[in-house]
Amino acid sequence: MMVLVTYDVNTETKQGRKRLRHVANLCVDYGQRVQNSVFECSVVPAEFVELKGKLANIINPELDSIRFYLLGKNWQNRVEQIGNNDSYDPDKDVLLL
Amino acid sequence: MMVLVTYDVNTETKQGRKRLRHVANLCVDYGQRVQNSVFECSVVPAEFVELKGKLANIINPELDSIRFYLLGKNWQNRVEQIGNNDSYDPDKDVLLL
Repeated sequence: MMVLVTYDVNTETKQGRKRLRHVANLCVDYGQRVQNSVFECSVVPAEFVELKGKLANIINPELDSIRFYLLGKNWQNRVEQIGNNDSYDPDKDVLLL
Repeated sequence: MMVLVTYDVNTETKQGRKRLRHVANLCVDYGQRVQNSVFECSVVPAEFVELKGKLANIINPELDSIRFYLLGKNWQNRVEQIGNNDSYDPDKDVLLL
């Protein structure tokens, strides 16, 4: 399943900047960064549950927000981009290995 | 149709910060801000085309990136959130007016 993860972490404090780094570093383990605070994560349901649990342990729920959009099948056909695009298709790249 | 708009605008320069403001102000006209750089836009196809055209005229395509995720029907069932949530459901709120 493809899950889009977007996050806002309040970085007004040193602790906030640390949380932001932790969130980003964790998301790197699960997917492809397509923008600064946006990851496309190709995960199985168990990994998705794990990711949510880990993120919930990192953030400050009163200050930070993480949203998950389950993109479903054929998600590639429902994504458009304008401007700079440094992302790649993780499923496609796996096939190329 | 519900379109998720996410953007990265390079704010290293004064021009970049101006572009960021323009992008955000434009998106406000089309949808609901759910995170700092993430909007959920409930639009008809013609409005989506219009939004893309306007955004393309604002950004620097070599430095900035805007992504559009067409969430399809029953998108509300495929969104999850942890942490702070100041967003609302634009379709639902219209019904309440």
